[in-house]
Amino acid sequence: MSEQVRNPRLEIEYCTRCRWLPRATWMAQELLTTFEAELGEVALVPGTGGVFEVRVGGEAVWSRSSDAAFTDAADIKRLVRDRIAPERPLGHSERQP
Amino acid sequence: MSEQVRNPRLEIEYCTRCRWLPRATWMAQELLTTFEAELGEVALVPGTGGVFEVRVGGEAVWSRSSDAAFTDAADIKRLVRDRIAPERPLGHSERQP
Repeated sequence: MSEQVRNPRLEIEYCTRCRWLPRATWMAQELLTTFEAELGEVALVPGTGGVFEVRVGGEAVWSRSSDAAFTDAADIKRLVRDRIAPERPLGHSERQP
Repeated sequence: MSEQVRNPRLEIEYCTRCRWLPRATWMAQELLTTFEAELGEVALVPGTGGVFEVRVGGEAVWSRSSDAAFTDAADIKRLVRDRIAPERPLGHSERQP
């Protein structure tokens, strides 16, 4: 029954006016599937103004405002991995051609 | 870039061993769709031991351990509404036959 936040905490803030809830929950599922043991929680945060930002420990790892076009889940997983589990391999999605 | 929690904060803790992530993200979407303006955030919290619990402000509004069988989204929405927006009607799902 505690209200305490679980760390590492990842936040996904998304613009409700842009109807990005499905995109945000899809990303949450991808990250919680990959980092099931490493993540303390994933918070979905309704926002406005075209925001789509993935933060770890309050720090942006990916933001639509600075990183322009939407990227795929594999890219964001690499950025999250670098923060919360740098030694963790991510399998085939990481292999170079 | 703040790490601050947004209130009201709703948490969904789910058992990863039971593979309830899809159920948890479905519930998150339902609640964020209905309470888009009222909820500060929805945190998905990986847990174990058969847990599936919906908490508002740290207090359980629905728990699989005490409330037995899974209920549908409309029931949980009513419980959440009573905590965060008691005056808010929920439309047809609330009408009595």
